[in-house]
Amino acid sequence: MSDKSENHFGIHAKWIYTANSKQELLEDHILLIKDGFIDEIVPFKSFSNDEDLNILNLGESLITPGLINAHTHSAMTFLKGISDDQRLNDWLEKSIWPSEAKLLSHDLVFDASQLACLEMLSSGITTFNDMYFFPDATAKAATVVGMRANIGLVFIEFKSGYANDFTDYLDKGLKFRDDFRGEESITTALAPHAPYTVSDDSFLKIRTYADQLGMNIHCHMHETEWEIKNSIEQHNVRPLTRLDSLGLLGPDFIAVHCVHLDSSDLEIIKKKQINIVSCPVSNMKLASGMPKINTMLNNAQNVAIGTDGSASNNKLSLFDDLKLSALLQRSEIGVKEFLNSKNLFDMATINAANTLNMQDQIGSIEKNKKADLVSFNLSDIHLQPIYDPLSTLIYSGGRDNVQNVWVNGNLKYSNKEFINDVDVESCINKIKLWKNKIST
Amino acid sequence: MSDKSENHFGIHAKWIYTANSKQELLEDHILLIKDGFIDEIVPFKSFSNDEDLNILNLGESLITPGLINAHTHSAMTFLKGISDDQRLNDWLEKSIWPSEAKLLSHDLVFDASQLACLEMLSSGITTFNDMYFFPDATAKAATVVGMRANIGLVFIEFKSGYANDFTDYLDKGLKFRDDFRGEESITTALAPHAPYTVSDDSFLKIRTYADQLGMNIHCHMHETEWEIKNSIEQHNVRPLTRLDSLGLLGPDFIAVHCVHLDSSDLEIIKKKQINIVSCPVSNMKLASGMPKINTMLNNAQNVAIGTDGSASNNKLSLFDDLKLSALLQRSEIGVKEFLNSKNLFDMATINAANTLNMQDQIGSIEKNKKADLVSFNLSDIHLQPIYDPLSTLIYSGGRDNVQNVWVNGNLKYSNKEFINDVDVESCINKIKLWKNKIST
Repeated sequence: MSDKSENHFGIHAKWIYTANSKQELLEDHILLIKDGFIDEIVPFKSFSNDEDLNILNLGESLITPGLINAHTHSAMTFLKGISDDQRLNDWLEKSIWPSEAKLLSHDLVFDASQLACLEMLSSGITTFNDMYFFPDATAKAATVVGMRANIGLVFIEFKSGYANDFTDYLDKGLKFRDDFRGEESITTALAPHAPYTVSDDSFLKIRTYADQLGMNIHCHMHETEWEIKNSIEQHNVRPLTRLDSLGLLGPDFIAVHCVHLDSSDLEIIKKKQINIVSCPVSNMKLASGMPKINTMLNNAQNVAIGTDGSASNNKLSLFDDLKLSALLQRSEIGVKEFLNSKNLFDMATINAANTLNMQDQIGSIEKNKKADLVSFNLSDIHLQPIYDPLSTLIYSGGRDNVQNVWVNGNLKYSNKEFINDVDVESCINKIKLWKNKIST
Repeated sequence: MSDKSENHFGIHAKWIYTANSKQELLEDHILLIKDGFIDEIVPFKSFSNDEDLNILNLGESLITPGLINAHTHSAMTFLKGISDDQRLNDWLEKSIWPSEAKLLSHDLVFDASQLACLEMLSSGITTFNDMYFFPDATAKAATVVGMRANIGLVFIEFKSGYANDFTDYLDKGLKFRDDFRGEESITTALAPHAPYTVSDDSFLKIRTYADQLGMNIHCHMHETEWEIKNSIEQHNVRPLTRLDSLGLLGPDFIAVHCVHLDSSDLEIIKKKQINIVSCPVSNMKLASGMPKINTMLNNAQNVAIGTDGSASNNKLSLFDDLKLSALLQRSEIGVKEFLNSKNLFDMATINAANTLNMQDQIGSIEKNKKADLVSFNLSDIHLQPIYDPLSTLIYSGGRDNVQNVWVNGNLKYSNKEFINDVDVESCINKIKLWKNKIST
């Protein structure tokens, strides 16, 4: 009986937003979960509980696919809020880089990623796409917390506390990939840091590995005006043109940021069916510029949303980014129609799954997909009255409305409590110790 | 003893942001409250509890002045989330105006304002500056919930369910003002709706009343490009120039929005020492434009932040607006220095008090000011680690961190519970009934 109730059960909610291709918003349905997968979605009226399943009745709640954070650096949570009031150069040169240089280690990355995972999970995020040093430590943190993660094998042309040179980054990355091959919740990508920190030669090798191993390429692109100017000085062309010439670009390429795009960039993005991940809060907080969400949607294969790392956001919750994306899209010159709440929400779910090439497994509520789910309690006084549950969640709500989070059908967070073996207090204390090492 | 503990007590917190003229952020201090006023602020180390006062120890919390929402239409909460995905014209013409025309009444305004007050209070707001029909109903709601409010005597040149013409709006407004004269927590302003809905003649009368009664003038200004075009067509000048010619502008004038400002507008704003209230979320959600926070700060006497009404935000929490103000200020062309967290926070506290001409009573934590206070619990996992409590609250936190709210030294909200006589469930149910009347 116990096995049965855990592996085969139902959830009854007032609303379910499926994020399927019809963008169906269902009212008063029951979602049946079996062995970690979505088994059936049945109108409550026509449901008869012949198998005597446990049915969790959530009342005035909205169930959505688990949110997918399409770009982050989890471990940078140890720098959350450092030098918030500083400009980019001072922020990087006086705070971020010295702190990383001083402390970077497997232990730091594990501790900080674990805290980041707890924050993301309690913000309704079930999958994240990460890029940082010691990817094995972040992958381990994700498995301990019980999340799904696509972890980048990072490449950067300088020595760090993690690796020495391209070959070293590659060897360590591939070893990490092998070590986690049996882990259902961990997938990997190749993650060259950015055009200004990776050489042509390295990019070519990365393209070869991507083809041979069937991995995506996850890379920062066109984040700042400086980056473009620098590329023109060094390579005579803009970064996207350079990477296009190198054969890097295609539907397996995930270009993060893309704040600065001219018409030649848009042509490349369209022709090569690139995926874009926008991180609007981070872009504006670092004064990199305001991403043009509408332009991205009109040109990229997929547009997904990411929080970026905690150091530049400073929330690992997609809700600030979703609302800001909506506000920016409405404010963009020439926009004819407002992005509706379903299209907006899809950027945090199915579009992100498409971006990661995981659309067959996650990103929408459909039969045979993995049961990665979130329920939001919409009975909160802050959300009343409700004309549209999805727009209510986006514009009036946020992570404080997260009620339950399931990964593979397993409840991982419920009513503000984590359901895993992580000692939350000790996790917070460890971060305070790391912070003290920076400050002193 | 009971009287003593209620009227004279202390609060001990890790941080106190005073918002005083030195912008002091105090660590490990005790705040002593006596008869509803701030009596003393003492370092914990040098405090000896000779009078055996009750000391509330909040631990890892930040105490700030109660937040001041410098512009809202509380009652519009009954329209929160209606037609979120529509453009301004459809939103106004198909949803907002017909709903108001159909339902506007004292009961509606009271019920909706009450819900709005509960939302604001639980978001750390202790004072709000309101403009809507049936100001007496909103004032009554504020007193029932236990908040401070500056309520506008509204003027608009059309007949509504509230009043027929200028004289009727004026008579009803003045009667309301008289009725609430004995209410410590209610102050009033003159609130002509906007340049495009109020005639020269009415504006002149409003100026006279403002002078004679010593009241501020609270008015929407330069919200949309249409408004400016319309003014040039009708009056041959931009709205600010028109109101300047009429003698309306001065340090008692509160200009809400000011999204579209040219150099002539800035000159007037500076010369006449006008106060600006910016509502960035509302402006961007309605696609009115992006307010230039830095430009405002460089020209206006005071810049404060407002949420605007629930229908166009849709949160009556200043945190989304504060974070967006910071992001917009950083993204503004020509900005040399980032607005720091203290200056930012002041826009939601002392600047707003200055704007309302209430700076002697509220807006900062100083001896002899009214004890309108908020404490934020910064031990939340989402906020770790903490390098700067104020920037942590602004960039990583929000209303979910509100722990306690005091008005006049009386605890009104604590640990997610309201401490007043309002039946929260019945309040929500009433709003649902009003919503159903619109939908059917």
